[in-house]
Amino acid sequence: MITEQFGLGVVSSYIEFLNNGNFEGIASLYSKNAIIEDPIGSDKIIGRTAIQDFYRQAVLGVHQVNQLGEVRVASNEIAFPFEVVLAKDPNLAISVIDIFKINAEGEIDSMRAFWGPGNVKSVSKPAPITA
Amino acid sequence: MITEQFGLGVVSSYIEFLNNGNFEGIASLYSKNAIIEDPIGSDKIIGRTAIQDFYRQAVLGVHQVNQLGEVRVASNEIAFPFEVVLAKDPNLAISVIDIFKINAEGEIDSMRAFWGPGNVKSVSKPAPITA
Repeated sequence: MITEQFGLGVVSSYIEFLNNGNFEGIASLYSKNAIIEDPIGSDKIIGRTAIQDFYRQAVLGVHQVNQLGEVRVASNEIAFPFEVVLAKDPNLAISVIDIFKINAEGEIDSMRAFWGPGNVKSVSKPAPITA
Repeated sequence: MITEQFGLGVVSSYIEFLNNGNFEGIASLYSKNAIIEDPIGSDKIIGRTAIQDFYRQAVLGVHQVNQLGEVRVASNEIAFPFEVVLAKDPNLAISVIDIFKINAEGEIDSMRAFWGPGNVKSVSKPAPITA
């Protein structure tokens, strides 16, 4: 069971590290034998070394990460919606929901990323400012 | 593995049935031995009869349900953010993320609802219209 404050902090660090390309920081949030499934249905990535390798590549694909709504903290799990604006085309973004399961040491024990082809879309432009 | 279109349809039916108080309709989306955990960490509700009883009560607490962002469909799972405006106080809403796991028959085999006390908030009022 984690507090809401703790959950918000984990998500805040995760997004900050993604935006800074800090793959070692991200890996340090995970437990030694943590499991990643990104997206759901793909091969699982297991253990902190493999996880660091995964994020070393992943951060190269990130132009910017933006939270898209409230972080939900329940028992020892966290769910939150966000978008990844792509480095290869900053006009495209993937809308994702991540689920973290937190262990007794406060580390992420598993991460499951929900997104599919239908969640890759053009970034909505802000409306032009009119006088 | 489900299609995006199928996933969008399940979520659309689920929200429509919640808004109409149609607890029998909701229960019919679930498999015979489906499991509900709402919120994460609470006792599990197992089987379609118990699930119908759960929603018979739940719909009484619903003033309105609004989708809050994109539905994410991945492999045989669905994640989506929404809010439940409360019947007992329509100025309050709970922001939830639900995860559905779909079986080979296209039924919901499990539902896990992510929300905590920090997700119960005043409904944001639309800005007043000015000339």
